Amino acid sequence: MSDTRQLHLGAFMRPVSLHTGAWRYPGAYADANFNFAHIKSFAQKLEAAKFDAFFMADHLAVLNMPVEALRRSHTVTSFEPFTLLSALASVTERIGLVATASTTFDQPYHVARRFASLDHISGGRAGWNIVTTANPDAALNFGLDDMVDHDERYVRAREFFDVVTGLWDSFADDAFIRDVDSGIFFDPEKMHVLDHKGPELKVRGPLNIARPPQGRPVIVQAGQSEPGRQLAAETAEVVFCSPRDLAGGKALYADIKGRLEAVGRKRNDLKILPAAFIVIGDTVEEARQKRLKLDSLVHYDSAIASLSIALGHDASGFDPDAPLPPIPETNASKTGRSQVLKLAEEEGLTVRQLAQRYGGYAGLAFVGTADTIAEEMAVWLNEEGSDGFNVVFPYLPDGLDDVVDKLVPELQRRGLFRTEYEGTTLRDHLGLSRPENKFFR
Amino acid sequence: MSDTRQLHLGAFMRPVSLHTGAWRYPGAYADANFNFAHIKSFAQKLEAAKFDAFFMADHLAVLNMPVEALRRSHTVTSFEPFTLLSALASVTERIGLVATASTTFDQPYHVARRFASLDHISGGRAGWNIVTTANPDAALNFGLDDMVDHDERYVRAREFFDVVTGLWDSFADDAFIRDVDSGIFFDPEKMHVLDHKGPELKVRGPLNIARPPQGRPVIVQAGQSEPGRQLAAETAEVVFCSPRDLAGGKALYADIKGRLEAVGRKRNDLKILPAAFIVIGDTVEEARQKRLKLDSLVHYDSAIASLSIALGHDASGFDPDAPLPPIPETNASKTGRSQVLKLAEEEGLTVRQLAQRYGGYAGLAFVGTADTIAEEMAVWLNEEGSDGFNVVFPYLPDGLDDVVDKLVPELQRRGLFRTEYEGTTLRDHLGLSRPENKFFR
Ligand SMILES: Cc1cc2nc3c(=O)[nH]c(=O)nc-3n(C[C@H](O)[C@H](O)[C@H](O)COP(=O)(O)O)c2cc1C
Ligand SMILES: Cc1cc2nc3c(=O)[nH]c(=O)nc-3n(C[C@H](O)[C@H](O)[C@H](O)COP(=O)(O)O)c2cc1C
Repeated sequence: MSDTRQLHLGAFMRPVSLHTGAWRYPGAYADANFNFAHIKSFAQKLEAAKFDAFFMADHLAVLNMPVEALRRSHTVTSFEPFTLLSALASVTERIGLVATASTTFDQPYHVARRFASLDHISGGRAGWNIVTTANPDAALNFGLDDMVDHDERYVRAREFFDVVTGLWDSFADDAFIRDVDSGIFFDPEKMHVLDHKGPELKVRGPLNIARPPQGRPVIVQAGQSEPGRQLAAETAEVVFCSPRDLAGGKALYADIKGRLEAVGRKRNDLKILPAAFIVIGDTVEEARQKRLKLDSLVHYDSAIASLSIALGHDASGFDPDAPLPPIPETNASKTGRSQVLKLAEEEGLTVRQLAQRYGGYAGLAFVGTADTIAEEMAVWLNEEGSDGFNVVFPYLPDGLDDVVDKLVPELQRRGLFRTEYEGTTLRDHLGLSRPENKFFR
Repeated sequence: MSDTRQLHLGAFMRPVSLHTGAWRYPGAYADANFNFAHIKSFAQKLEAAKFDAFFMADHLAVLNMPVEALRRSHTVTSFEPFTLLSALASVTERIGLVATASTTFDQPYHVARRFASLDHISGGRAGWNIVTTANPDAALNFGLDDMVDHDERYVRAREFFDVVTGLWDSFADDAFIRDVDSGIFFDPEKMHVLDHKGPELKVRGPLNIARPPQGRPVIVQAGQSEPGRQLAAETAEVVFCSPRDLAGGKALYADIKGRLEAVGRKRNDLKILPAAFIVIGDTVEEARQKRLKLDSLVHYDSAIASLSIALGHDASGFDPDAPLPPIPETNASKTGRSQVLKLAEEEGLTVRQLAQRYGGYAGLAFVGTADTIAEEMAVWLNEEGSDGFNVVFPYLPDGLDDVVDKLVPELQRRGLFRTEYEGTTLRDHLGLSRPENKFFR
């Protein structure tokens, strides 16, 4: 495997896209949140394109936004990830399946079981996006009055990881003998009772599931704070992140990879995959126009609130169709304000267009032809900005088809992406080794 | 729908059978616990035979049995039900999918989401087997030192049901407008915030899932105690039970159906499906021999413990190959003892054979030809012993094939079972109506 020189590609899925205007884009499947047939077709196309993984973000409450934005957003509801990814497991064969599970609002025995089971059902394709859950509304759905404190969430996450990985190792790989003649089904000597008693969690075990085919489902982490990065360095095999640009990507890459040695891990044990919004045209200008058209579908009333937040300044009185007026700099809004100003200048956007950008999707984006985007991606890879990308589709199905039909072949032509899966598990795709059992060697 | 005069058939599945010797039976898939392809083939065969539902029992710990029995039992580990049933949802089209979820060791927000999601993915085929979890080892896997008290478990179960059904009704059926022109995705007036604050649970809501296609996944209950029966009367649409014989079945049927009127429900709103172990031969004698052969695969060391428990008397000193010696009657063991004596007499079994019966599967069984079994089932239906059965296969795949290929056609010939699905949802199969939304009419 020429691992270091090839990109890893995940699909950062929401059924209708992460972009809040996407459901109105011509050809979009506006009902995809609860239309399994659509999502199945997306997963099968991504598998045909040899993507490493299909990733479904997840939230434990209706997203908290002002009602004016909420009623216009398709992100309000969708499938629960385990049911969805398991249903996809039986209609795909190779693509990795990464589900989100919260360490703050779930139990390690449940989480360990579900991922182990998904790993068995999929033949070794499961990944766990460990999140501590940031949305304070989630707490209210689980009996609490207030969100658990940020640091405490990360302390529990670290212990939760130890318990889940310990439970996965409840049985040696060769515990199940199934010897029909002697009548011995399994060897109890090869079953480990975890008996974990920690400050946050008490779990006896053993898990009632055989060791997962991958030994451990792949561990993914997306927290960006200091404790989030440290948790990633200690536990994660893939990091999802959202740098704004190459400089930000390189800084994050250096920071997280730089933490590995101190915890006894190698640089290649962890892959960093920034979220990248990709809009492809036959010309760069066509791609830009597609993006402007998509942004234009975000309603101004909800968009302007997002711009005001980004600016740290109420923008609702500005002329929507004029350029951004001069805005006084305040301490609170320094970074946000300078980003908006930079964007306004680079793309020559009006207030309305800026608002719609922030209300739609304002993260890292590659907008151009298959050729220019492949070139940009190669730069990220070569300059250690990332080990690949977690692709955000601007609208579906067409935006996904463009990536699969145009960008992937261009990446393959350049030797930057596989033309066939070399193995069968998600670990194989990512070039990660199968961990040994903690209790049986 | 000629609902009252037809049987409903569920499959009470364990991947290798509930019978502890089944993995050693000739032709058995001993590895089915973690071989999805096998389970998929079972589900597809049951669907071709027009079964109402595929039901997967579930436990939150390795079953607690003496190690001598444990190491010989294939029931020790298997798939987690949501991942399994979701994977089956995408490779089947009509059969109902009933998963077990515990009200004692899970959170209503999670449970509501997963069943709603499974119902969407499967097009309205989900059912929830509500259990309060009896295995004390489960508590140890969820941070507790002791099992929650039986009554308290049922109090929480009742409130849990209210919360879950309330969350399912978070959105009116027509909340999602998705009007591309106006840009309105959904109508917030048609979203209900539950804001439940009860003695056991506090859950705000709304659920982040659209109302399930069935309105509510079908509610199943299998508790047999007084509070278990009352919970069933108040909430369940299907009752799984395990009477020993027709007299016991009729008593249970009368008891549970008799509770319905007082809680404002009709007799037909709840279907009673006893577990029935079915062994089919071309002659009655052949069926009996199959069963004896299967029982003989249960190891004597684990079998004799089961017999001692059933007798309430240590049987380990008895001559295995002689008839049961006379046993003093004690107060503690009255019912069990008389059942064993009855069985020993009826079938002329030795101590070894009795032990193997109790160590294998000792519940209600129909052993005979397709014809004699269809006749027995008709009697149960006509005498109000049940509304159908939850079929336990003695060994797989052959025992399942016998039911599908021999018994089902015989039931169909007699007009006792459907020859085609009449609807698409599990509610349709069971002749249950779609509940109205509690908050939007
Ligand atoms: C690419 C990406 C994907 C994420 N997916 C989820 C998700 O599915 N569910 C969730 O609750 N949070 C998700 N997050 C949020 C992070 O888990 C985390 O809460 C956030 O980045 C804030 O970091 P911190 O908690 O370390 O402060 C995601 C973040 C990123 C960058
Ligand atoms: C047919 C049948 C299926 C059952 N399936 C499960 C199951 O999947 N998981 C579980 O924990 N208990 C299961 N049980 C046990 C019941 O939920 C219940 O705990 C038991 O019948 C004792 O009743 P009680 O709790 O009302 O005393 C099942 C019982 C029966 C009769």
